[in-house]
Amino acid sequence: MSKPYTRLDKNNAAVLLVDHQAGLLSLVRDFDPDKFKNNVLALADLAKYFKLPTILTTSFEEGPNGPLVPELKQTFPDAPFIARPGQINAWDNEDFVAAVKATGKKQLILAGVVTEVCVAFPALSAIAEGYEVFVVTDASGTFNEVTRDAAWNRMAAAGAQLMTWFGVACELHRDWRNDVEGLAALFSNHIPDYRNLITAYTTLKASK
Amino acid sequence: MSKPYTRLDKNNAAVLLVDHQAGLLSLVRDFDPDKFKNNVLALADLAKYFKLPTILTTSFEEGPNGPLVPELKQTFPDAPFIARPGQINAWDNEDFVAAVKATGKKQLILAGVVTEVCVAFPALSAIAEGYEVFVVTDASGTFNEVTRDAAWNRMAAAGAQLMTWFGVACELHRDWRNDVEGLAALFSNHIPDYRNLITAYTTLKASK
Amino acid sequence: MSKPYTRLDKNNAAVLLVDHQAGLLSLVRDFDPDKFKNNVLALADLAKYFKLPTILTTSFEEGPNGPLVPELKQTFPDAPFIARPGQINAWDNEDFVAAVKATGKKQLILAGVVTEVCVAFPALSAIAEGYEVFVVTDASGTFNEVTRDAAWNRMAAAGAQLMTWFGVACELHRDWRNDVEGLAALFSNHIPDYRNLITAYTTLKASK
Amino acid sequence: MSKPYTRLDKNNAAVLLVDHQAGLLSLVRDFDPDKFKNNVLALADLAKYFKLPTILTTSFEEGPNGPLVPELKQTFPDAPFIARPGQINAWDNEDFVAAVKATGKKQLILAGVVTEVCVAFPALSAIAEGYEVFVVTDASGTFNEVTRDAAWNRMAAAGAQLMTWFGVACELHRDWRNDVEGLAALFSNHIPDYRNLITAYTTLKASK
Amino acid sequence: MSKPYTRLDKNNAAVLLVDHQAGLLSLVRDFDPDKFKNNVLALADLAKYFKLPTILTTSFEEGPNGPLVPELKQTFPDAPFIARPGQINAWDNEDFVAAVKATGKKQLILAGVVTEVCVAFPALSAIAEGYEVFVVTDASGTFNEVTRDAAWNRMAAAGAQLMTWFGVACELHRDWRNDVEGLAALFSNHIPDYRNLITAYTTLKASK
Amino acid sequence: MSKPYTRLDKNNAAVLLVDHQAGLLSLVRDFDPDKFKNNVLALADLAKYFKLPTILTTSFEEGPNGPLVPELKQTFPDAPFIARPGQINAWDNEDFVAAVKATGKKQLILAGVVTEVCVAFPALSAIAEGYEVFVVTDASGTFNEVTRDAAWNRMAAAGAQLMTWFGVACELHRDWRNDVEGLAALFSNHIPDYRNLITAYTTLKASK
Amino acid sequence: MSKPYTRLDKNNAAVLLVDHQAGLLSLVRDFDPDKFKNNVLALADLAKYFKLPTILTTSFEEGPNGPLVPELKQTFPDAPFIARPGQINAWDNEDFVAAVKATGKKQLILAGVVTEVCVAFPALSAIAEGYEVFVVTDASGTFNEVTRDAAWNRMAAAGAQLMTWFGVACELHRDWRNDVEGLAALFSNHIPDYRNLITAYTTLKASK
Amino acid sequence: MSKPYTRLDKNNAAVLLVDHQAGLLSLVRDFDPDKFKNNVLALADLAKYFKLPTILTTSFEEGPNGPLVPELKQTFPDAPFIARPGQINAWDNEDFVAAVKATGKKQLILAGVVTEVCVAFPALSAIAEGYEVFVVTDASGTFNEVTRDAAWNRMAAAGAQLMTWFGVACELHRDWRNDVEGLAALFSNHIPDYRNLITAYTTLKASK
Repeated sequence: MSKPYTRLDKNNAAVLLVDHQAGLLSLVRDFDPDKFKNNVLALADLAKYFKLPTILTTSFEEGPNGPLVPELKQTFPDAPFIARPGQINAWDNEDFVAAVKATGKKQLILAGVVTEVCVAFPALSAIAEGYEVFVVTDASGTFNEVTRDAAWNRMAAAGAQLMTWFGVACELHRDWRNDVEGLAALFSNHIPDYRNLITAYTTLKASK
Repeated sequence: MSKPYTRLDKNNAAVLLVDHQAGLLSLVRDFDPDKFKNNVLALADLAKYFKLPTILTTSFEEGPNGPLVPELKQTFPDAPFIARPGQINAWDNEDFVAAVKATGKKQLILAGVVTEVCVAFPALSAIAEGYEVFVVTDASGTFNEVTRDAAWNRMAAAGAQLMTWFGVACELHRDWRNDVEGLAALFSNHIPDYRNLITAYTTLKASK
Repeated sequence: MSKPYTRLDKNNAAVLLVDHQAGLLSLVRDFDPDKFKNNVLALADLAKYFKLPTILTTSFEEGPNGPLVPELKQTFPDAPFIARPGQINAWDNEDFVAAVKATGKKQLILAGVVTEVCVAFPALSAIAEGYEVFVVTDASGTFNEVTRDAAWNRMAAAGAQLMTWFGVACELHRDWRNDVEGLAALFSNHIPDYRNLITAYTTLKASK
Repeated sequence: MSKPYTRLDKNNAAVLLVDHQAGLLSLVRDFDPDKFKNNVLALADLAKYFKLPTILTTSFEEGPNGPLVPELKQTFPDAPFIARPGQINAWDNEDFVAAVKATGKKQLILAGVVTEVCVAFPALSAIAEGYEVFVVTDASGTFNEVTRDAAWNRMAAAGAQLMTWFGVACELHRDWRNDVEGLAALFSNHIPDYRNLITAYTTLKASK
Repeated sequence: MSKPYTRLDKNNAAVLLVDHQAGLLSLVRDFDPDKFKNNVLALADLAKYFKLPTILTTSFEEGPNGPLVPELKQTFPDAPFIARPGQINAWDNEDFVAAVKATGKKQLILAGVVTEVCVAFPALSAIAEGYEVFVVTDASGTFNEVTRDAAWNRMAAAGAQLMTWFGVACELHRDWRNDVEGLAALFSNHIPDYRNLITAYTTLKASK
Repeated sequence: MSKPYTRLDKNNAAVLLVDHQAGLLSLVRDFDPDKFKNNVLALADLAKYFKLPTILTTSFEEGPNGPLVPELKQTFPDAPFIARPGQINAWDNEDFVAAVKATGKKQLILAGVVTEVCVAFPALSAIAEGYEVFVVTDASGTFNEVTRDAAWNRMAAAGAQLMTWFGVACELHRDWRNDVEGLAALFSNHIPDYRNLITAYTTLKASK
Repeated sequence: MSKPYTRLDKNNAAVLLVDHQAGLLSLVRDFDPDKFKNNVLALADLAKYFKLPTILTTSFEEGPNGPLVPELKQTFPDAPFIARPGQINAWDNEDFVAAVKATGKKQLILAGVVTEVCVAFPALSAIAEGYEVFVVTDASGTFNEVTRDAAWNRMAAAGAQLMTWFGVACELHRDWRNDVEGLAALFSNHIPDYRNLITAYTTLKASK
Repeated sequence: MSKPYTRLDKNNAAVLLVDHQAGLLSLVRDFDPDKFKNNVLALADLAKYFKLPTILTTSFEEGPNGPLVPELKQTFPDAPFIARPGQINAWDNEDFVAAVKATGKKQLILAGVVTEVCVAFPALSAIAEGYEVFVVTDASGTFNEVTRDAAWNRMAAAGAQLMTWFGVACELHRDWRNDVEGLAALFSNHIPDYRNLITAYTTLKASK
């Protein structure tokens, strides 16, 4: 009776980054800014590392919402980038949906700002069309914890799986032996405690 | 197997504001008073902006519970206003249910004080009669977070969708192009961070 | 597909108070002691007010767990009181189950210490035997919030309804007109903010 | 041996509002935005109500810091407004100091963004020049609570008095009989709980 | 160089309870209402237990601030009760100061609502006149923790000693042998954990 | 329609301890280190006390993740210990699954570091293969509360039961009379409040 | 003008452990019980490690306060142990003061339960008699954080130095070279993170 | 009577970075790791930007404490680096003190791990020798907030000024016109919200 285990598969997954714009980010207050910035860039780096097709989209970026944060543009220079002219739910934008379909993937890894709108709306729409949706909770931000909790509840009830960028990376990678260096670098760059473990280990190893 | 995406439709939605009374508001301690006041008025303003039929109701307003907060009366001078003589669950009041039915809407956007009683009881009753219920979590207040969490759990298990006033506004509006000015004004009046974005943007734009 | 609204009915409900013992109470740290004491006594008072059959039980009260708190014994001098000789799950005790069955009620309002054991175990057992279980979350305490959250999750997944003593009182009473004085007295004795509303109201009314 | 009681005197006090700019406000995360906006406007309203000489200043408002929030300009259309060309400590700006001196007041009521810089620096400088400084803690914001605590510690050690806008208003007013209506209006506009008390009181009074 | 130890002396201490009024109490949000009510009544009970001269005062109790909470009137039927006609700082009221002086005590134990005004102002004034002031922090409430912290800082800098009702009781009593029963009763009535200790102890003792 | 009560049975349960390694533990920040260490050791002690087959596994223990904490090795010197060469999900390791199957048990009590990966992945896999999974939430740690909440949500949605080490012990033991001394010792060693109850009780009992 | 640096000297320091009794410990709620137990035992272990004269005292241990926790008695079998017959402030007990004087030390390292009474009172008394007092804040517990903050403020204002057991150990030891093994063992036994560092380091070192 | 304003002067200040080692950093739990890493690197970057003489020191870096984090070595390749052989208080190491004296500066900007030892001890020693000490609170970390608060209290009482890296940067820079680009780059690299302001501003400016 419970939900079956749908596991992320790097050959069947795409990443959707929705509205991480310079203006909108000032609305995010359920994460500390340093941590949130790190989480978003970690998700971007893992998308690149696993060579997952990635789609960028923004809402009204000519106005107060501001431009996409430059780091994302730089990480994905060739990714489809849909600057939506007005649709709040990215899934209401035909170009966006077409880009998603063009990836040919059935698993959507989704993050954005703000959680209860820019993430929840396309998540619910994609599930309704048969996609498996994995929300990257820690790369999605919103006004406060109360708002976040309500949004998580709504998405989970609809069948979305709530994950984190670290969980996504681990479920995609499956086995360290596929590439120890690469995964360690990803963690070292985005998890200070892990970096410290590696520093201490490497230094001690080298000192023998 | 998961719950299908039921999306708010401005042509099929009504707003129910339950027991936002001057006395009862002193019981609300799961939100800061400044924030809660803003959330309630934001919900009222969006109801008016989207021209949603809105119903006001109070419990025992002659007694210690106190009168409906004046701002709500002023925003909806012509709305049905049911001063319940004793029913705790608004849905037990025939006039209230009649007013809901008279709207002809099937989607109910619901907020009130206190969450586990004045919101949860009519939410559960309305769901039982086939309505789609959207609880505006941040315009509903109660004694403390423990109480709120239990109430959310009970309503969500029954099929209510937990939202926020901002999510409601966005899902109703769907596309900025329907009215940029209007939605921006709503946000500017009730989201200080958004107002600041607009101020900075407008000033800079004007300075060219 | 969602859970139907099962509403508390004062003619069909019994109250089970499990292991509110002087020693065990020192384990409760997810509520402030002043607040928790008040919540437990409020639940006891409402059980008495609504004349609900009430069952008291303790675990090993001769040992370190200590005796039942005296206020509960005093409030229910004639209630069945099952001092369990060893069963941790009260539902494993035949006398306790017999007492529950003897009430002839199908709705069980349940609270105790500690939540994940003394409340969760009988809640799950009672549901398995077809009872409708309403957990009074704020009159049930445990070691910390993490533990509580896990216990709530387990009980809610099994079909228990999470409530508070205030919600229980309101759902049982249904209409203020059934007895304004009595319900107001219950609230005045256990909700300081409500008492203040009544004090201010009454004083001003009298001053006219 | 302890610090003597220096009491605010409405005939000897001026208000300094430092760098409440649209861009800088997005840095403030030790207060909820709704609450912080209200606190700043409450301070502005009280300055106006008590007719205290008020000085506005901004840092680099042509750049990313953004313009002064419009409400402040509107409240004080004729106040000295010093747009500092570069000085971070407002007290390093001769025009600002001249404006302060021109008020002829010895008590400075100070608030700004961010606390440890735009408030603390001029507070320390003013104390060093013999002024009595009253920091309005809840109309001053910064990155987080850790930063705020350090800033408060530094200012208090130097002799600043830490207050709130409400405390300032009360200490300036001294006696309700000086103007009941005016002070009540100030509180009603900026303290929702107080507004509710007044609403309930007035309604009941009128109903007699 | 540090502040010398000024110890409470039951023969030289008076208690001042300032503005614990039914309306104003709804403003208090830095304590849970159950806990705050208990703290205030505990302070009242200890004042009575130690037979300390006690003075009650209120601000504008005919208006929205509401009447003194009835329990305090009942506990001190013969205490001086100064209903101030307008002075915000109780020390600005001649009758209040006269009542304080009439006690002949030099140590003032002070609590009230709200902390940064009704407590801080008379505390600072009393210190300025040479009194030793002991603020009962947990029987004094205000809007939020930020406000409280600022008020504590201001009072401590001026030389007030910050205490709690429990600390006050212990420092006044000095030796359990002065009256074991009485002090135990005070603690049992206002500290649930202590009551539980006594219940468990007494029961086990009796069972021998 | 709700999930039936699956109760832990000491004759049908095995314990899986996943990746409690010296390096990885520095990543755990959703529990205080003192508390987390105690919880993990309590789980180990209960596994031993109930003679549950227990399986230890580590990930990459030659590298920065570090060795299994020595206490676990010492508690279970003869337990299967699978040092995984690279599989992140322990269930992807054939030896681990074989060890689980070799126990012949259908109920798996699972804890590990970090929750959303080392616990969630094998939990989901085991459920998919028909095992009943009980997650020991307080002996499983991760980066922060946000991450934990998302992981709990994912596992609970899949049918895992969220428990604590204390709940597990109580559900396995069922009746104090099975062994009062043994269970009391387990609690005394890992619950300071319980130890204090026992100390006070025993001392008083002995003093008669 | 600031307080000069008084540094702990192991040849001039004594440790006073006040009222760590099995009953009173149930009152401590400003620390998690696992953490607090660890902190108290760490302080005891360091006192023994540095061979500091240590004095134990209890209040009314025949009654509900309960006996001294057994671990402290076991750690200091030959220490002066003053079971006070009634004095709340240990310094009011002549035997206790005599025991302190008999140590011949001028620096007193002090911890106890509860902070604002059993710690603060003797701290203030000892300072008044010219001792240098170092309060071990994390081995002293009380009802809640508000109470603790007030007690810290009072003691710090009087000249006490607020420290932690770890800071005390480090200031006494001064140089690792005095005994690397011993200090590392103390830290390994009471700081799980440090133990993990040592485990990882030692294992890797040994693997070469 | 209050402490005079001692202002940081870039010509008279040196930076001391104490024990930011890979192992010790795992002990820091009063800051989120992402934030703390950012704060430490921000302080390093500002030291370099203002060309302040900087001194690095470590404690026992061959052992479990681990090596200095590589970023600090890289930022200051030519800085004095004192690997202390055993002294816990860096000021007890003659080479360290000599290096400090060699800078010829009287203002010491100090940060390290852990706060109550590696920061507090040299801070107190330096003050005792007449230096002006500025503690960078947010680049100094320790076990928990309780420990931090005690350490701050001790240092502030001794005359240290508590600051943050941002406050230090602003007080050193004094006037944006000294170098707009440089300071903006420092802020953009270490304050995500500020970076967003600059991104939005620059993009809009460029779009004209």
